[in-house]
Amino acid sequence: MRIGILGGGQLARMLALAAHPLGLKVKALDPSANACAAGVAPLVCASFDDPSALALFAQSSDVLTFDFENVPAAALNGLAPVCAIRPPLGALDVAQDRFQEKTLFRKLEIPTPSFQAISSAAELGQALAVLQDRAILKTRRLGYDGKGQIRVDRSSDPKRTWGLLAGAPAILEQLVAFDFEVSQLAVRSSSGETRFYLLFANIHRDGVLHLSYSPCDRADLSALAQRHVGALLEQLDYVGLLAVEFFVLKGTLLANEMAPRVHNSGHLTLEGNETSQFENHLRAIAGLPLGSTAARGFSMMLNHLGALPECADALKVDGAHWHDYAKTARPGRKVGHTTVNAPTRAVLQERAQRLGVDELPELWERLDGAAA
Amino acid sequence: MRIGILGGGQLARMLALAAHPLGLKVKALDPSANACAAGVAPLVCASFDDPSALALFAQSSDVLTFDFENVPAAALNGLAPVCAIRPPLGALDVAQDRFQEKTLFRKLEIPTPSFQAISSAAELGQALAVLQDRAILKTRRLGYDGKGQIRVDRSSDPKRTWGLLAGAPAILEQLVAFDFEVSQLAVRSSSGETRFYLLFANIHRDGVLHLSYSPCDRADLSALAQRHVGALLEQLDYVGLLAVEFFVLKGTLLANEMAPRVHNSGHLTLEGNETSQFENHLRAIAGLPLGSTAARGFSMMLNHLGALPECADALKVDGAHWHDYAKTARPGRKVGHTTVNAPTRAVLQERAQRLGVDELPELWERLDGAAA
Repeated sequence: MRIGILGGGQLARMLALAAHPLGLKVKALDPSANACAAGVAPLVCASFDDPSALALFAQSSDVLTFDFENVPAAALNGLAPVCAIRPPLGALDVAQDRFQEKTLFRKLEIPTPSFQAISSAAELGQALAVLQDRAILKTRRLGYDGKGQIRVDRSSDPKRTWGLLAGAPAILEQLVAFDFEVSQLAVRSSSGETRFYLLFANIHRDGVLHLSYSPCDRADLSALAQRHVGALLEQLDYVGLLAVEFFVLKGTLLANEMAPRVHNSGHLTLEGNETSQFENHLRAIAGLPLGSTAARGFSMMLNHLGALPECADALKVDGAHWHDYAKTARPGRKVGHTTVNAPTRAVLQERAQRLGVDELPELWERLDGAAA
Repeated sequence: MRIGILGGGQLARMLALAAHPLGLKVKALDPSANACAAGVAPLVCASFDDPSALALFAQSSDVLTFDFENVPAAALNGLAPVCAIRPPLGALDVAQDRFQEKTLFRKLEIPTPSFQAISSAAELGQALAVLQDRAILKTRRLGYDGKGQIRVDRSSDPKRTWGLLAGAPAILEQLVAFDFEVSQLAVRSSSGETRFYLLFANIHRDGVLHLSYSPCDRADLSALAQRHVGALLEQLDYVGLLAVEFFVLKGTLLANEMAPRVHNSGHLTLEGNETSQFENHLRAIAGLPLGSTAARGFSMMLNHLGALPECADALKVDGAHWHDYAKTARPGRKVGHTTVNAPTRAVLQERAQRLGVDELPELWERLDGAAA
């Protein structure tokens, strides 16, 4: 089976590495000839809004899937008769617009922070005037990793703030003082078979994922998250891996956003789970039976931004594995990650400290202490 | 770091898949343009005895390593000044000749079946005349997977038997009625750091590996195997992964043969151990710290010969993972394998049966019953 991946970044790279053992013939399409998937799969260099390039790519694929969910829907709409598109375009469409996404969450009775659409400086002014608390103004489209986001409060200048978004349609969201953040990853096959990973707890820095920990083994939160994400999978007739980020606040979950693709917080599944998110996404979209999502002990993932640290230093730590994305260094760029496995939390903490990670004990305190 | 692999078969393919996350730039050299590593790494198509092609390949590599240990030593001797060769040529040299190999085993006080070199029909006749038991005549060089092997006894016709080997120098070995077979895989870094996997128990069919099981958790046999393989690693100043096959007979080990490379019985380490044999071989030859060899529960590997069964049937079994070598089907050819992980022997047995494997209970009986 031929799998075409739209986008050739690290997600495509790790999908391709998982595709080869499954006997899937994988290729990627990316605007950059230097896209990092190129080293592990054939790369078609083309723009995401080049209809003839997309059509050719689709014609030589049995299934199209995504490393990048912001491929223009208009460019994709014509491809559905040519090959299967998994996850379905409806899921991409929803995920491309924060307002649509949160509106769907509410429709499915998935709690979210309070939010409203903002389409002008005047609307922003009205909203700020009645704001109870701090809030965050985000572009509805094309934001990721904290980009296109501005924190605001009642004293913010609506015209100046609106100007910073350059007139892009926006959403004003309540800023939640959450206890911690989790992500629920789930995978669904075309036959409707669904498997959930245990929750991962995530720590962000400057809007970008810094560290993920597994398992966030809280039966109360897992039950809520599985109910919410299960409802999304059904509603969207989803095929593939779906990630949903939640804020945890006093034992409840507030949905933040969803990603219709493999997810950075799931990179620890490469060594930390029986079947990685990459393998399970591919199994789902290729019509193969899904793999066990069971956790292998305790694990964490540390993102490397900008430039890679010394590989040999990381691998000195038992249970550590290295993931180099073969990218050139650039400030803030995700260039690789390290995963660490351990049989107990105590051993994981000792290993994490050797990698300079000291956030785990505080995270566990919040995780264990958050009242149901 | 640039790694050049001599040979582009499934071992090179799985090495390449493990090399990408480590940030190692890997390429393979193989006489066949269809070599199955080609899909995952650049392939140089050249003969193993083409000195100029080998020289070019070595010049563009920092380390040369092997998917195929029968590369003519003469072709490699000139390359040592050009780049590092790991494992060292001395190890290849020994492993290329069964008589040399068994002579080294004996020198290091590693027990073997009794053996003698045979270089003519007359010598074979003399040996057969005094034979106590059944024996096996093997070519000293270029035998693998049971090829170039003939079972003999006192009644065998020396001239006819010798003729079947077409005059190739041979070794006559005692045929051992062993209880079961195991392999000891070990990895050694250039600094002398050494890690041992737990023993794998192997079942062959028609001279070809059919099934491996891990862990063969027998402290008495592990201690012996680690002493023997540790002695070989030291003696050969070995860098990389070394596999040694042993016959188990009444709680003792008799060395059968060694492979100076990753080994078919170690394919289950892909999912069954904390660090796979492929990753650990690469870490060793690239000068990186070695990874934990700890077993993840109980696992088995089933070789697929000739043609692949239906992938979806295998993946219906929980804990199963699929490894397609991207080869065209051909009778007897190794075209892929399935690994299965399980938390207990009982669960492994239930999963194995769903894959049509019913050999495990008898293997465990022999394994547990073999007196120390």
